[in-house]
Amino acid sequence: MRAPAVHNPALVTDWRRFSSDTLVAFVRMQADLLRELTPGVPVTTPLRAFAAEFDYFDVANAVDFISVDSDAAIKSKSSEIAASIDLMRSLKGPKGHTPDGDLGFWVMEQKAGAVAWGDVNSLVRPGVVRLFTYQLISRGASGVLYFYWRQPRIGPEKFYGGVLTHDGSGKNRMYKEISQLGEELKRMGGLLKGTQVVADAAILINHENHWAIDQPLKPNKHFHQREHIQLYYNALHDKNILVDFVRPTDDLSRYKLVIAPSLHMLSGGQADRLKLYVHNGGVLIGTCNTGLVDEHHLTPMSGYPYELTDLFGLEVQEFDTLPPGEENHMHFKGSFTTSNLHPARIWCDLIDPQPGCQVLAHYARDFYAGRAAITMNDFGAGKAIYVGTLSHQNFYFDLISWVRQLCGLFPLIKVPDSVEVCMRQKEDLRLYFLLNHNPTNVRIQFFKPMHDFLTGQKVSGNFDLEPHGVLVLDEKVR
Amino acid sequence: MRAPAVHNPALVTDWRRFSSDTLVAFVRMQADLLRELTPGVPVTTPLRAFAAEFDYFDVANAVDFISVDSDAAIKSKSSEIAASIDLMRSLKGPKGHTPDGDLGFWVMEQKAGAVAWGDVNSLVRPGVVRLFTYQLISRGASGVLYFYWRQPRIGPEKFYGGVLTHDGSGKNRMYKEISQLGEELKRMGGLLKGTQVVADAAILINHENHWAIDQPLKPNKHFHQREHIQLYYNALHDKNILVDFVRPTDDLSRYKLVIAPSLHMLSGGQADRLKLYVHNGGVLIGTCNTGLVDEHHLTPMSGYPYELTDLFGLEVQEFDTLPPGEENHMHFKGSFTTSNLHPARIWCDLIDPQPGCQVLAHYARDFYAGRAAITMNDFGAGKAIYVGTLSHQNFYFDLISWVRQLCGLFPLIKVPDSVEVCMRQKEDLRLYFLLNHNPTNVRIQFFKPMHDFLTGQKVSGNFDLEPHGVLVLDEKVR
Amino acid sequence: MRAPAVHNPALVTDWRRFSSDTLVAFVRMQADLLRELTPGVPVTTPLRAFAAEFDYFDVANAVDFISVDSDAAIKSKSSEIAASIDLMRSLKGPKGHTPDGDLGFWVMEQKAGAVAWGDVNSLVRPGVVRLFTYQLISRGASGVLYFYWRQPRIGPEKFYGGVLTHDGSGKNRMYKEISQLGEELKRMGGLLKGTQVVADAAILINHENHWAIDQPLKPNKHFHQREHIQLYYNALHDKNILVDFVRPTDDLSRYKLVIAPSLHMLSGGQADRLKLYVHNGGVLIGTCNTGLVDEHHLTPMSGYPYELTDLFGLEVQEFDTLPPGEENHMHFKGSFTTSNLHPARIWCDLIDPQPGCQVLAHYARDFYAGRAAITMNDFGAGKAIYVGTLSHQNFYFDLISWVRQLCGLFPLIKVPDSVEVCMRQKEDLRLYFLLNHNPTNVRIQFFKPMHDFLTGQKVSGNFDLEPHGVLVLDEKVR
Repeated sequence: MRAPAVHNPALVTDWRRFSSDTLVAFVRMQADLLRELTPGVPVTTPLRAFAAEFDYFDVANAVDFISVDSDAAIKSKSSEIAASIDLMRSLKGPKGHTPDGDLGFWVMEQKAGAVAWGDVNSLVRPGVVRLFTYQLISRGASGVLYFYWRQPRIGPEKFYGGVLTHDGSGKNRMYKEISQLGEELKRMGGLLKGTQVVADAAILINHENHWAIDQPLKPNKHFHQREHIQLYYNALHDKNILVDFVRPTDDLSRYKLVIAPSLHMLSGGQADRLKLYVHNGGVLIGTCNTGLVDEHHLTPMSGYPYELTDLFGLEVQEFDTLPPGEENHMHFKGSFTTSNLHPARIWCDLIDPQPGCQVLAHYARDFYAGRAAITMNDFGAGKAIYVGTLSHQNFYFDLISWVRQLCGLFPLIKVPDSVEVCMRQKEDLRLYFLLNHNPTNVRIQFFKPMHDFLTGQKVSGNFDLEPHGVLVLDEKVR
Repeated sequence: MRAPAVHNPALVTDWRRFSSDTLVAFVRMQADLLRELTPGVPVTTPLRAFAAEFDYFDVANAVDFISVDSDAAIKSKSSEIAASIDLMRSLKGPKGHTPDGDLGFWVMEQKAGAVAWGDVNSLVRPGVVRLFTYQLISRGASGVLYFYWRQPRIGPEKFYGGVLTHDGSGKNRMYKEISQLGEELKRMGGLLKGTQVVADAAILINHENHWAIDQPLKPNKHFHQREHIQLYYNALHDKNILVDFVRPTDDLSRYKLVIAPSLHMLSGGQADRLKLYVHNGGVLIGTCNTGLVDEHHLTPMSGYPYELTDLFGLEVQEFDTLPPGEENHMHFKGSFTTSNLHPARIWCDLIDPQPGCQVLAHYARDFYAGRAAITMNDFGAGKAIYVGTLSHQNFYFDLISWVRQLCGLFPLIKVPDSVEVCMRQKEDLRLYFLLNHNPTNVRIQFFKPMHDFLTGQKVSGNFDLEPHGVLVLDEKVR
Repeated sequence: MRAPAVHNPALVTDWRRFSSDTLVAFVRMQADLLRELTPGVPVTTPLRAFAAEFDYFDVANAVDFISVDSDAAIKSKSSEIAASIDLMRSLKGPKGHTPDGDLGFWVMEQKAGAVAWGDVNSLVRPGVVRLFTYQLISRGASGVLYFYWRQPRIGPEKFYGGVLTHDGSGKNRMYKEISQLGEELKRMGGLLKGTQVVADAAILINHENHWAIDQPLKPNKHFHQREHIQLYYNALHDKNILVDFVRPTDDLSRYKLVIAPSLHMLSGGQADRLKLYVHNGGVLIGTCNTGLVDEHHLTPMSGYPYELTDLFGLEVQEFDTLPPGEENHMHFKGSFTTSNLHPARIWCDLIDPQPGCQVLAHYARDFYAGRAAITMNDFGAGKAIYVGTLSHQNFYFDLISWVRQLCGLFPLIKVPDSVEVCMRQKEDLRLYFLLNHNPTNVRIQFFKPMHDFLTGQKVSGNFDLEPHGVLVLDEKVR
C-alpha cells in the first residue's frame, strides 16, 4: 500500500519473498490437483525469462518440466534471447527432463511472424522464424509449438502472425517456411535424441537480490542489474563459451568459471558457498554493488562486500556513482594486459586492497585517481577477481579473453563474432549449430572438414553462410 | 470499462457507434424542443472539425444549419484549416442553407487574436485575423462572429485576444483591423449573395472507419488517418482543385475524382457504391489499409481489400510496416511518369496484381523488391488506382498532377504554391479569393486582366500581393 | 477540487491565501502551546527556501528564530544556494536573533555528503561540505547541524551520507573533513560574535504574486518567476553586491537599489510604497509582467502596469510571448551604453512611452521593431527603470554594472567572477569570506595586504586559492 514516504526496503523485500512464495504455493496446489485427477500426465506452465516477479527456480521445482514463451523476432538482439533461453534451460539444472524423456525443455509459444502489441509490427523477414527456432533447439529445446496456428479473424490480434493466414489456404510464405523446417527436424530427430547442452561457465542469479536492488531509492537509477548481467553474458556468448545460470546456493564445483554480477544482497551462507568454490580451485569474478546488505537488508558494520572482504582481499568504504555520459578511465597493469582504453562508468568502488591482493587496474581521474578499480586475490587453490566498476561492452570481451585462458576454457568453434554457435552433445556425438543473424552472407573458415547435416555435404575451407542461414554440423566422437 | 487486456475492437467500434447515436439522439431531442418552443427560429450547434468522437454528418442532419468554431491562428498550417472548413461545408451537402437563405455555413467563434490555452500565446501578427476571415468566407462561410468581443477582466481567459482590450476604448490594433474588414464586407455583401463553392473532386471520410482504426493495438502506431487524408488534401489544395468530403454511401456521380484514403473498415454495400462509381466512368484512388475488416470488424477469408479485389485487380496477402526513419523506395514505370525519387514509408502492401492490372510503381528494396506498390485497373468505363503505401508530401503532388489530367480537372487559377485560392460562384459570377499566407510579398502573374474588387483597379501582368494580403477578383460570366 | 474547466485564478489565489493563513495559524498555535509548556525555550521550525506553498514571512513571524534545511551539494549552482540563504536570512529582517543572541539564523540540516533521493547520488568531493558550510556562515548562519551523524544501517536512506559511516569508526573521509572545520570554527567563534550581513540592494518577493502567476493558463508556460528573480540575483551575486529579499510592503528606504521582477499581481497600496521609495530618491527596476492584475486578480481598465504607469512614464497595451529558441533583439541607446548584443526572449512588452520617459533600448525585429523595450523615467528624486522583456544572463551583468554606478553601489572586494564573496561586519570588524567553487586553483590579486584568519598569515599580491578552498580575511575598522 501507499506510504507517505518510500517503504523500508527490508519490508519490501520481505513482501516480495512472501508474494513469490504464495505464487509458488498456488502453482504447487494446482499441479497437485492435476496429478491427482490426471495421473501420469506431466504438468508445466509456460515461463518468460527475466520478468522476475517471482522466483523462477522455485516455480521450476513445482512443475514436472520447463516450458517457455519465446518472443524471438527480428528486432531482438540474439545474445539477449540466448540469455533468456539459457536461463530457462538452467532452472531444473542439468537433469531436467521433458515428457518425451529428453534432457531440456519445451517451447510452448514461439512466434510465427509479427506480433500485434508492438508500436510498429513489421513483417518478420524470410528465414528468421526458422533461424530463431534453431536457436531454441541448439540451446536445449526438444519441442516447439507455434503461435498462432492460423491468424484469428476477429479480436485485437487479427493481424498477429500465424503459420496460416486468415484464409487457411496454406499458400502463404510462413506456412512454407515452417513446413521446410518440419521436414528438416523430422530427419534430425534421431540425432538430437539424448543430446544435451553442457556448460563450463556459470553466471550467478538470485531473485531475492534482484528484489533487493529494485527499490525506489538507489545509489544510481541508471544501474540496471539485467544490463550488468548481460554485459558479462554477451562476452561469453560472443566468444562461444556456453553458460548456465545458477543460484549462489547451487553446487558450483562443476564450473571452471563463475561470475557473480552485483550480489547487492548476500547472506553469510551464500558468502560461504562462494568461498568454498574458490578455495577448492574455482575462479570467481565478483563486482561492485556486492555485499552491501545482508539477507535482512541490513548493512554490515564493516566495509563491503559483506563477509567477502577476506575472499577478495579488500575492503570498500565508499562508492561513487556517475550519471550517463560522465566517465572515469582505467589504467591496467599486472597480469591482465590490455592495450585498449576502457572507461569506468555508472559505479566506482573506492577499494582498499589488503596486502597480497594484486591490483589489475586503477582509476585514472578524479580525487580517487590511482586507487584500485580491479583486483585479483589468491584464496585457497583458486582466484577471486573483483571488478569494482562497470565499463562498456568491449572491456568485458577483453576481460573474458584473459580469464578464459586463466581457467582453461575454450570456444566451441572459431567463427566470426556475428555468428552464434551452440552445441548439443551426447557420448558419441557433437551437434554444432551455426546461426547467421546478419541480413548478409558471412564467410566461415573451416580448418578441418566437417559434415553439413542438412545437405549431407562436407564443408571445408571457406564457406559462405547465407543471410539468416543455419548450418548444422554433426561430428562423431570416439 | 477497464478490461484485463485490450477490448475486442469489434465491441469498441460498436460502443462508439452507440455513443454517437446516443449523442445525435440527444441533439435531435433538444432541437425538437426548441422548434416547438420557438417556432421559426433556426437551430444549430457549433462544431469543430476532425474531433471525431461522433458522426458529424448525423449531427448535421439533426440541426437546421451548420455552424463552426474556428481556431485559425498564425501557427496553424493554412491547408489544414482549409480541410477543416471544407469538411464543415460538406456536412449538409451542396444544398446546405444558413438562416439568411445563403448556401453555406456560419462561423460562431472566430478568434480575434491570441488564445489563452497554448503553451506560448504569442500575439497574432497584423493582418492575420483578416486573412483567415477571408479564408472562411472563400470556402463557404456567410457569417462570422468573433470571440472575444472584449477581453474579460477576470478569469482564466483574461489575456485571450478580443476585438476590444480590457479598457474597451477601441484604440487597439485588433479593433482597427476588424473595423476595416467590416467595411470591406459591407461592400461585398451583394456580390457574395447566392454564390457557392463547387468542387469536382471528393475525399471519402467515414467516422466508423476512423473508430475502427483508432484501437490500442495497430499494425503501426505511426499511421494516422488524419495525416493520410491530409497528404491527399494538401496536394489538391496546393494545385487549387476544390474538394468536398463525402461518405462512401453518398452520391459520388457528380465528382470527376474520388480519393478513398485507408478505408480500413468497409462493408459490402460501401464497396458496391465504389464499384458503381468507377463502372460508370469515375476515377477512384484507393490505398493500403483498405478493406481489412468488414462492418462487423471481421477480416475477410480472402486477401485484402475486402470485396474490392476485382475493382482494383489485385490481392494483398501481407503488409509490412516501417518505423519512422526507415524507408523503402519506389521505382516508377508505365503511364505514371515521374522523374522524382519517392520513398515508401509507414505501410507497404505486398500486392499480387491480377492479369490486366497495370503496375505503376514497384518497391526497390528489401525482400519484396520488385513487387507492385502502385497499380491501375480498368473497371467498366472508369479507372481504379491503388496506392499500396504512404510516401512523403511531394509524391502526392506528383500523383495529383498526373491524375488531374487523367480525369480532366483544371486548377482554378495559376498562382505560386504558397498562395491559397478558393472560388465562390453563381450563374453569372465567379469570385476568386487569393490569400498570401507568407510574411513576405508574393509575385503573381496574370495572363489576362482581372478586376480587383477591394480597390476597384484592374490587375494584369506582374502583381505583388503583400504579406498576409488578400486579393478578391470578381469575374462576370456570360 | 476538480472542475470541468480550469478554476478562476482569482478563486485559486484566494484559496492559496487561505491555505497559507491556515498553516501559519497552525504553526502559531503549536508555538503558543510550547511557550506555555516550556517557557523560555525558543521555538522554530526548519524551512526550505522557494518551496512557496505558504508565506515564509508570515511563518517567520510566528516562530522565535529562523532555522533552515540546506541541500547544498556539489551539483547545485552556488548562486542559487546563496539566493536561498539570503531569502532565509531576510525573513525576520535585519533584527532577527538566534537563541544564543546572535543576529542571523541556524541551519538545522546541512548535508554531510551524498543524498539518497537523487537519480545519481555521486560522492560529494573532498572539501565541498566545508566550502558550503562556510557559505552558510558567511551569509548569516550562527549554528550548523549535520545530517546524518551516522549512516543508518537499515531503511531507504542507508547510503545517505553521514559524518560517520555505518561502522561508526570515524576513520572515514567525511569525519576528518568536519573535524577540521570544527577546529577552525572553535577559533573563529569570538570574531563572529555580533557580526551581521548588511545589504544595500534588495529584490522584492511576494508569495501572493507567486501564487497569482502559478496558474494553469499563462501567457507563456516557459516564463518562470524563480528563474526571472535568479537572473537579477546572479548579476548582483557575481558582482559581489549583497542582497536582501523584501516584500513590497516592507520599508525600502534603507536600500540604494530595489529590483522588482514581475510583480504580476500588485495592489494599489503596494504600488504606492514603490512610488514613495522612488520619490524619495530610490532607484527601482521594474519589469514586464508587472501590474497585470490587482489584489483581486482583476485586470485594470487602463494599460499595464496597474497604478504604476505614472511612475515608469509608460503604458503597455499588448505583450508578445516567444517560445524557447525564438528571439527578438535589442538595440541600445541613451545613457545605458553596452557594446554587446542582447536578445529579447520569452516576453516582450509593446511599450508606449510618455513624454519625458527615456528609451534605453528598442526591439530590432518583427512588427514591433523600433518600439521601446527598456526605459528610464525620473520620478521625484529617484529613477524608475522598466525592463519590458527577458534576456540572457549576460544582459543582467551589463545592466547591473551600469545601474551600480547610477546608485553608488560598490562590490565588496575585487575577485574573479567564479569566486563567491560575502561579508559579516560589526562596529569595528569586517570578516570577508572568499569561496572557490571551482575544482581548480583560482588566482586572486590583493591590492592591499590582508590578514588570513585561518593561517594567521598576511596575504598580498597574487594569491592562489585552492580548489574548493576557503579564505577568511579579518579587517579591523576604526
